[in-house]
Amino acid sequence: MLRERLIHLALDEDIGTGDLTAKAFRAENKKGIFRYLAKEDFILCGTISAGLVFKELDENIHVTFYQEDGTLIKKGEYFGQVEGPIYSILTGERTSLNFLQRLCGIATNTSRYVKELEGTNIKLLDTRKTTPGWRVAEKYAVLTGGGHNHRIGLFDGVMLKDNHVDAAGGIHEAVATVKRNIPSTVKVEVEVRDHIEAAQAADAGADIIMLDNFKINDIQKAIEIINKRAKIEISGGIRLENLKDYRELDIDYISVGALTHHATSVDISLKIQKG
Amino acid sequence: MLRERLIHLALDEDIGTGDLTAKAFRAENKKGIFRYLAKEDFILCGTISAGLVFKELDENIHVTFYQEDGTLIKKGEYFGQVEGPIYSILTGERTSLNFLQRLCGIATNTSRYVKELEGTNIKLLDTRKTTPGWRVAEKYAVLTGGGHNHRIGLFDGVMLKDNHVDAAGGIHEAVATVKRNIPSTVKVEVEVRDHIEAAQAADAGADIIMLDNFKINDIQKAIEIINKRAKIEISGGIRLENLKDYRELDIDYISVGALTHHATSVDISLKIQKG
Amino acid sequence: MLRERLIHLALDEDIGTGDLTAKAFRAENKKGIFRYLAKEDFILCGTISAGLVFKELDENIHVTFYQEDGTLIKKGEYFGQVEGPIYSILTGERTSLNFLQRLCGIATNTSRYVKELEGTNIKLLDTRKTTPGWRVAEKYAVLTGGGHNHRIGLFDGVMLKDNHVDAAGGIHEAVATVKRNIPSTVKVEVEVRDHIEAAQAADAGADIIMLDNFKINDIQKAIEIINKRAKIEISGGIRLENLKDYRELDIDYISVGALTHHATSVDISLKIQKG
Amino acid sequence: MLRERLIHLALDEDIGTGDLTAKAFRAENKKGIFRYLAKEDFILCGTISAGLVFKELDENIHVTFYQEDGTLIKKGEYFGQVEGPIYSILTGERTSLNFLQRLCGIATNTSRYVKELEGTNIKLLDTRKTTPGWRVAEKYAVLTGGGHNHRIGLFDGVMLKDNHVDAAGGIHEAVATVKRNIPSTVKVEVEVRDHIEAAQAADAGADIIMLDNFKINDIQKAIEIINKRAKIEISGGIRLENLKDYRELDIDYISVGALTHHATSVDISLKIQKG
Amino acid sequence: MLRERLIHLALDEDIGTGDLTAKAFRAENKKGIFRYLAKEDFILCGTISAGLVFKELDENIHVTFYQEDGTLIKKGEYFGQVEGPIYSILTGERTSLNFLQRLCGIATNTSRYVKELEGTNIKLLDTRKTTPGWRVAEKYAVLTGGGHNHRIGLFDGVMLKDNHVDAAGGIHEAVATVKRNIPSTVKVEVEVRDHIEAAQAADAGADIIMLDNFKINDIQKAIEIINKRAKIEISGGIRLENLKDYRELDIDYISVGALTHHATSVDISLKIQKG
Amino acid sequence: MLRERLIHLALDEDIGTGDLTAKAFRAENKKGIFRYLAKEDFILCGTISAGLVFKELDENIHVTFYQEDGTLIKKGEYFGQVEGPIYSILTGERTSLNFLQRLCGIATNTSRYVKELEGTNIKLLDTRKTTPGWRVAEKYAVLTGGGHNHRIGLFDGVMLKDNHVDAAGGIHEAVATVKRNIPSTVKVEVEVRDHIEAAQAADAGADIIMLDNFKINDIQKAIEIINKRAKIEISGGIRLENLKDYRELDIDYISVGALTHHATSVDISLKIQKG
Repeated sequence: MLRERLIHLALDEDIGTGDLTAKAFRAENKKGIFRYLAKEDFILCGTISAGLVFKELDENIHVTFYQEDGTLIKKGEYFGQVEGPIYSILTGERTSLNFLQRLCGIATNTSRYVKELEGTNIKLLDTRKTTPGWRVAEKYAVLTGGGHNHRIGLFDGVMLKDNHVDAAGGIHEAVATVKRNIPSTVKVEVEVRDHIEAAQAADAGADIIMLDNFKINDIQKAIEIINKRAKIEISGGIRLENLKDYRELDIDYISVGALTHHATSVDISLKIQKG
Repeated sequence: MLRERLIHLALDEDIGTGDLTAKAFRAENKKGIFRYLAKEDFILCGTISAGLVFKELDENIHVTFYQEDGTLIKKGEYFGQVEGPIYSILTGERTSLNFLQRLCGIATNTSRYVKELEGTNIKLLDTRKTTPGWRVAEKYAVLTGGGHNHRIGLFDGVMLKDNHVDAAGGIHEAVATVKRNIPSTVKVEVEVRDHIEAAQAADAGADIIMLDNFKINDIQKAIEIINKRAKIEISGGIRLENLKDYRELDIDYISVGALTHHATSVDISLKIQKG
Repeated sequence: MLRERLIHLALDEDIGTGDLTAKAFRAENKKGIFRYLAKEDFILCGTISAGLVFKELDENIHVTFYQEDGTLIKKGEYFGQVEGPIYSILTGERTSLNFLQRLCGIATNTSRYVKELEGTNIKLLDTRKTTPGWRVAEKYAVLTGGGHNHRIGLFDGVMLKDNHVDAAGGIHEAVATVKRNIPSTVKVEVEVRDHIEAAQAADAGADIIMLDNFKINDIQKAIEIINKRAKIEISGGIRLENLKDYRELDIDYISVGALTHHATSVDISLKIQKG
Repeated sequence: MLRERLIHLALDEDIGTGDLTAKAFRAENKKGIFRYLAKEDFILCGTISAGLVFKELDENIHVTFYQEDGTLIKKGEYFGQVEGPIYSILTGERTSLNFLQRLCGIATNTSRYVKELEGTNIKLLDTRKTTPGWRVAEKYAVLTGGGHNHRIGLFDGVMLKDNHVDAAGGIHEAVATVKRNIPSTVKVEVEVRDHIEAAQAADAGADIIMLDNFKINDIQKAIEIINKRAKIEISGGIRLENLKDYRELDIDYISVGALTHHATSVDISLKIQKG
Repeated sequence: MLRERLIHLALDEDIGTGDLTAKAFRAENKKGIFRYLAKEDFILCGTISAGLVFKELDENIHVTFYQEDGTLIKKGEYFGQVEGPIYSILTGERTSLNFLQRLCGIATNTSRYVKELEGTNIKLLDTRKTTPGWRVAEKYAVLTGGGHNHRIGLFDGVMLKDNHVDAAGGIHEAVATVKRNIPSTVKVEVEVRDHIEAAQAADAGADIIMLDNFKINDIQKAIEIINKRAKIEISGGIRLENLKDYRELDIDYISVGALTHHATSVDISLKIQKG
Repeated sequence: MLRERLIHLALDEDIGTGDLTAKAFRAENKKGIFRYLAKEDFILCGTISAGLVFKELDENIHVTFYQEDGTLIKKGEYFGQVEGPIYSILTGERTSLNFLQRLCGIATNTSRYVKELEGTNIKLLDTRKTTPGWRVAEKYAVLTGGGHNHRIGLFDGVMLKDNHVDAAGGIHEAVATVKRNIPSTVKVEVEVRDHIEAAQAADAGADIIMLDNFKINDIQKAIEIINKRAKIEISGGIRLENLKDYRELDIDYISVGALTHHATSVDISLKIQKG
């Protein structure tokens, strides 16, 4: 119900005590059809949320998208429609577009990074650097754009950092403590800062080892040390511009916060169908 | 309570059934101090939300910011601190940072636009193109960055567009209908597409007239037609790069959606203070 | 969603852990039709809320009103019906009637005041002296009865009182402070206690000036001082009995708290349609 | 938590996206003391809700009432105070007063009816004709004014009406059906329209028999028929003006809807205490 | 809405940020029919909640039960079906079964106790020792199994214990205090520990007297003392094994906490119907 | 916030429109100390929830437990106390005890199973057969009793069953589909019904293989087939009585639904401390 809570919050903040314009014209009962128009190229994402906004607002509105999430939409293309009472549609228009514009923006942004890794076995991962309230939606947009998800939150994965290791008295102890307490279906990842820690994490039975801000040469050596005992993730300082440099590495994951926190909205509008 | 709902949603989506790592180490009761560190220059914004995240999580955490919202923070500066149980702080860290990074991003982005209009009487306005769930927070960030707010939502302002005008049978009738129904403290704005509509809107008693996608020459002529009978807002096609072109116009407002929907997060981290 | 929250609250407080009578007879599945009967004359108002009560309770109940809100209903008239499972209807009956009785009461009360101002350009305004939880509904009832709305809440209008003026260091400074911070679509109203303040408010650029508890002669002089530079509202000590005394004044608004806080419910019952 | 839900709803509808005036002056941190002033005589009621409004708003506000609920307050008396940040107090002022004014109004109204029955054993009861959302608060105001409560809702009492009797095939069957299904601590009341039904209800083991719209002579005869086998309540057509006519009857309860649905607010204001 | 809140909580705790398996297979749109299969004998209970789980999840799922609550279901019997999109059904399967298994368990457990009292006029009552969040559902299961309900909560019955009696200064005073304050439809029960208190409670006008942990001989004497002036309930130390010992007593109620807090779930599964 | 939602629900269902007894005695302001008394031996669990019940009710109540969760409490032992206003404590008493009794019951029940596996490396797992609304609390009780958790819900683990395998066209395809879609920190478990499927699951790269209802001999052979390529879980038909039979197997997990769905409450009471 997280999605519903976000949609309700979005409608509440925009409508508040009522859409003044819609109420002034409430005597009008005209129906109409509006269509979503792409003002630039993008990967479609967020059609379910964009449709739910209208459904929560007025059950007499019907939304149809002509394409599925993940499709490349071209500038000038009409890719969906909203049919129903005109004043209810105008009430929900901005919120529906705001959902769509941001999620398409993230999917499109992600797809650019994914392209740089095409042909390799490396999976591009997102992070928890998402817009508060939007975690599930934004992670879904990353999937839609061809990326993969790191843990969704604090409940479906463990990431041991130096604070935990220090508190537990070492990597070995930290991993053991965690394994006693977590569900059998969840993996333990350890963030390491050098080759010694990488070796300790592999010895301790970490499922995934994250090399934090390692240079490419250091990654090479860490791969040898870990020697397939754990999956390897690299993170830190990776940008769209230098992503290609990591293509040849025998690693499992590259995580990039910018997939979500540096994405911007794409341009979409909702046009009434005349006559 | 919209702010509290967003913070609860943000904590719920990240923590869900529990922070696995924190729970594994729950026997540890160590306390510590973490400090917010700027990794780049930015305008500070969002300190209240960033602090509330921790307060909602654990009342034993105390957050202090050394600077007020609106202050320019320099790269490398520590600008606030979080004190309390280490594992609770680690649970809230990411969410608190996510709030701060986005709101500072918007305030900083806005301040760049504001600088282009310095020395004029033109107010830079935001739009309703905000992240769903974040309307109040993002509009506050625009204010913090030196901009001004257009209506917050559908409840505190009227913006008549062509659909309303068509439905009512003309600009005059649309304005009259709206004035009969809205609170005495709310203004009526009319969006116009040409000089004829601008004249009609002024005649009809619009409080604000929005010139939609007018070229500079056309704006000049509209100013003459309106002749101080209404405030004038321009909108459409205005970017940071060309904002200076509008400085000399005798208009009241310029509204720019990109203040919010093209802002990206700034880079901030939370560092534990070692012994 | 404020309306839905109030309806849910109303059903929860009445039904709690369950309607004992309905549950005892739950084996009965009989359907029936009940009709709303006016036990006195009134202006109809609240049909949407009265219907929503049943809809939230049981989607198999269908409510139809034969008249629109704003219509004068005469004693003895059946003006709507509820069709569906008898025991569900009995569960919602009291709550539906309670909504209707109060909102019709306010609309009817308002219409009496409005009649006293007929033929003038003065708008009768409500205040924020409404039943907590009922703001939007009661303000709608005022509109239905022919009145107009003052600001709905603290978010869609500014009303500067002496506390603000004192804090800011004068009316001029208070108005300026507010104008820097509020949305472009919202007006600034200043409450004044004498002619000097009225003059200052007009000079400061107030959109509306409220003359608080002014005698008729003093109002006349204030009108001259303000001289069309702002809208004028009068308030305080105005009752149904003396409302006529203000008809000839060249003012814009009269606000009366009694429209809502001295309205009482009208008498309506729900009668089962026999055989 | 019904009380908290109503208070949150009341604050949400008034504050919405924020108190524009308070936000404009947010730099001011002045503290002050305001006092509640009676503008007419009334029975005090609602101090807890009036205080909670401020507590929910800002934990730095402290509210104290000098008198307890149920006390007669005289015109001109200061009976409580609010201490804290001035702008937070101004934000909550109207809502706090709105709670107090209505609840004092109901308690005061009730006390007038109660006085008419003083010296008898008859208890004055309220009904379920309360303002939706306000059930518990308004019933508490009736108690405060010296009245007693009928069932609070549909969950703590059974009231069999003709629809139930018809459905069950007679009063005897209806009472038996209900007794099989309800909690052991809840009484069964039967509404009767004539002496035959009164006799049947007593035979069937009703705990309370409600004589609906009986004339005084008919009540006398019903008392004899029932002969102490059940408590007797009368209802319908009873007004403050004719209440005395029922004083001599050997009945247990008189229920009057007007206690709540015809009460109006009393006049109270909140005055800042000047230096 | 308590039932809906529990169902939403149940779905939220199980689904959280999404059913990973269902999402992975979301491209599949296959529909299917699943049937509820009894893996042991039991009394059916909870069909409404079990169905609502699916309805809240996906409005395209349709649930039908072939038997009504209260029916004895035999091992191996298919007693209901769920039809709709297979992956949505798999998402809700476990939660729907968990509701059904527990409520059938309580109804079945209750029916064993009821059988021991068959042929007497003694009603078997539950207590407030229910699973938090499940009060209404578990009390309904007791009714379904042939038992009766004691008060549902603290709002629909009064049970005076020694703490209240001590505070009030005696049983007489405690009963009088309570009767002044409670709704007219609610009974007063007094818990007594010996014959002196039983006599006092009857004298004071208690509606029900609860003999707490009395031996059978002592119960006999209490019955004589009370002498039909109040209903009699016994409680404490009563187990399925010794329930028969109380059959011959002239008492009204026996209350047993084990009906709910010692019930265990029955075994039910949901089987897909193969081609 | 799932825990808070359950506690609020529990208080709402018990208190509803108010604790009638507490309200009648509200003039009394006496404070007191109550102590939790064990009426049988058990493993303590649920102290946080038991305390939160009182904290949510009245912030003036202070709860202290003398022992930590996981401690063996002996019959007759006082293991915690509640201090504050007597009538508020009586309001929360039943709900606090109901939480404690059930969670101690599950921890104690689990500890009996755990004892049977002591000295082995096999972890005892719970299932999703928990009381709806209680998932997190009951899984915590299993941990407290010495068991381990299987996935908490549908969001932190994948369990492929025959329906998924059939839909995907085979185990290999099902595992591949899932791995493309799930977070990098979550494991894939496959439920298999025979040795062929066990082999396929191991080949497909399952992280955990669940042998459903395998006999001991068949388990032995499956262990050889899987040959350490995946963790092994067994499930089905395992009871406290036969758990020892599985001690010698080289498996990782045994999951038992009865840990939660066949646990009953332990007996605890809250005694006022006299004089």
